[in-house]
Amino acid sequence: MKFNIALLAGDGIGPEVINEAVKVSDAIAKKFNHEITWTPALTGACAIDAVGVPYPDETHEVCMKADAVLFGAIGHPKYDNDPSAPVRPEQGLLLMRKKLGLFANVRPTFTFPSLIDNSPLKRERIEGTDLVFLRELTGGIYFGEKGRKDNGDTAFDNCVYTRAEVQRLAKKGFELAMTRSKKLCCVDKANVLETSRLWRETVQAMEKDYPEVTVSYEFVDAVAMRLVQWPNSYDVLITENLFGDILTDEASVISGSMGLMPSASVGEHTSLYEPIHGSYPQATGLNIANPLATILSAAMMFEDAFGLKAEADAIRAVVNKSLEQGVVTEDLAPKGSKAYKTSEVGDWLVANL
Amino acid sequence: MKFNIALLAGDGIGPEVINEAVKVSDAIAKKFNHEITWTPALTGACAIDAVGVPYPDETHEVCMKADAVLFGAIGHPKYDNDPSAPVRPEQGLLLMRKKLGLFANVRPTFTFPSLIDNSPLKRERIEGTDLVFLRELTGGIYFGEKGRKDNGDTAFDNCVYTRAEVQRLAKKGFELAMTRSKKLCCVDKANVLETSRLWRETVQAMEKDYPEVTVSYEFVDAVAMRLVQWPNSYDVLITENLFGDILTDEASVISGSMGLMPSASVGEHTSLYEPIHGSYPQATGLNIANPLATILSAAMMFEDAFGLKAEADAIRAVVNKSLEQGVVTEDLAPKGSKAYKTSEVGDWLVANL
Ligand SMILES: CC(C)[C@H](C(=O)O)[C@@H](O)C(=O)O
Ligand SMILES: CC(C)[C@H](C(=O)O)[C@@H](O)C(=O)O
Repeated sequence: MKFNIALLAGDGIGPEVINEAVKVSDAIAKKFNHEITWTPALTGACAIDAVGVPYPDETHEVCMKADAVLFGAIGHPKYDNDPSAPVRPEQGLLLMRKKLGLFANVRPTFTFPSLIDNSPLKRERIEGTDLVFLRELTGGIYFGEKGRKDNGDTAFDNCVYTRAEVQRLAKKGFELAMTRSKKLCCVDKANVLETSRLWRETVQAMEKDYPEVTVSYEFVDAVAMRLVQWPNSYDVLITENLFGDILTDEASVISGSMGLMPSASVGEHTSLYEPIHGSYPQATGLNIANPLATILSAAMMFEDAFGLKAEADAIRAVVNKSLEQGVVTEDLAPKGSKAYKTSEVGDWLVANL
Repeated sequence: MKFNIALLAGDGIGPEVINEAVKVSDAIAKKFNHEITWTPALTGACAIDAVGVPYPDETHEVCMKADAVLFGAIGHPKYDNDPSAPVRPEQGLLLMRKKLGLFANVRPTFTFPSLIDNSPLKRERIEGTDLVFLRELTGGIYFGEKGRKDNGDTAFDNCVYTRAEVQRLAKKGFELAMTRSKKLCCVDKANVLETSRLWRETVQAMEKDYPEVTVSYEFVDAVAMRLVQWPNSYDVLITENLFGDILTDEASVISGSMGLMPSASVGEHTSLYEPIHGSYPQATGLNIANPLATILSAAMMFEDAFGLKAEADAIRAVVNKSLEQGVVTEDLAPKGSKAYKTSEVGDWLVANL
């Protein structure tokens, strides 16, 4: 098969980790007889520097024409302390999500047996955890009307959801649950919010179409607790944009493998794959960043965007092997043992595919 | 001194744990020569059953006249699966907060050396944790305009904050930080929300009035992560209503002492003290619920509402002693060892004061 992949490396360590994901993807493509065309495009702080906006139209064109988008990370410290600056890298992220219609953010949290002791949680709490959040990504309070009144002394943000928005996200949740343990948890705050009551009634009405799926409804504050207490009691969770932002980040640290967690954002026009970690500016150019989350994001891309499960499994298997054999960057290397460079990890994976 | 305390026992185990807090408070009052008048009033499901509303006017009158309010817990399973029922216990809670002007919810999270191994976190992660959240409690998306449009197919919740609301909460935060380690963390989502940008600029403008306090600004998703990773890196945190709901509950489980965490809600007209746990319906009437969170809430009341630190310290000391000597309810009793009844714990505390 032939694929055209938009390559959005972004800022900080983005280009370095993307580079390794490209290496591994090319090696897989060669092995399985596919042909990948990579089309690089600018986004984030580097796009602001180059053309003045964080998500240029040319980049959008490239993404729209691509079969999938592989994304690194964006953000630069010069924007960090001024969240009200007129132009900021994150605006590019939000604009990209909206313009590409990336409405479902897929965020798995799972454990690697060899990394389980990195978790802040006790082994018996985290063992066996394998859950997936589906976070709604183009609606809610992120995109509602916002502004000021009373000479700037009153601020407001409106949270809005339509039944159709909930349905398309929930549909993905039910479908994903059907391929897993058939348990779905709808996370909301229906005891306080009207949007949450719409979420809950919409999901309740869809239950009859998926009679095999057991649905639970839990308040966001209760989920924030149980994620730390019994993360392995969850399977598929669906939730709105802001709750998803908070809970997926909370979930990401419990596994002890934060630097390894991939994600997908699935949309109307295309889908995008990215590591969940940030642009880690302090490490830029040092060839020390962990490329595995990006490489595992490429695996998700092969499986979900192109339907190539064997290719994805081959990537995951070699990543597992590298972890077991200790071919890891400094964030994962035990004290006293050798840490590999970013590019050395990529080279090792290619050689051992 | 003479105090008039409104006693809102509420539902489920509320009356049982309140009973023990009254016992201990009366014993302390006797010892230190104070006189307490308790005025019971209905709230929650029991108020709905009795008079049709969860926060009756008579109850409000009782609270307004009191020097402080001691609260148990509210909620009943018959309301659990229908968050859109026209009358629900939680509405009473929100109405009470609003009518009493309880704008600052004070939620400490700390560890008891003897309970540290109950934490889902590893000992080295949680040891030394001693943080306090100040959650804004009468504004934000909880109280903004909410409703439906398009024949019910669109729902909205408006989040609104005024500069004055932020200032009065932040003032409490700065003042509390001054009595502790002088570190204050402002939790927001200023990279996305206009209300958060108002929070941040308001707190920034107040920094000059508290030159000794070091203020950090962190995004809510980052805090949700760091709370699990390095909870002991925090001291005082201030945040808006919904973020506070999620993060204080997350924080409550990391200590391993969830059943012991007290809270205060400080207001314009009075202040209210309550355990953070719920009404635990399954345990109702069994005399097994842990009364310590309510008793420690009474200690907060003595210290913060009445300015009686010695009295509060005496309560805390005897609670510590009971934990060390294993005089605990079944939730804390190690397997195989005796569990005390709710009332037995209260009796022991009174006898050992
Ligand atoms: C950078 C920020 C706008 C973004 C979000 O809140 O969605 C990030 O936290 C994320 O989760 O991708
Ligand atoms: C019951 C509910 C309305 C309430 C809230 O969200 O404030 C509760 O979760 C709390 O934190 O006291």
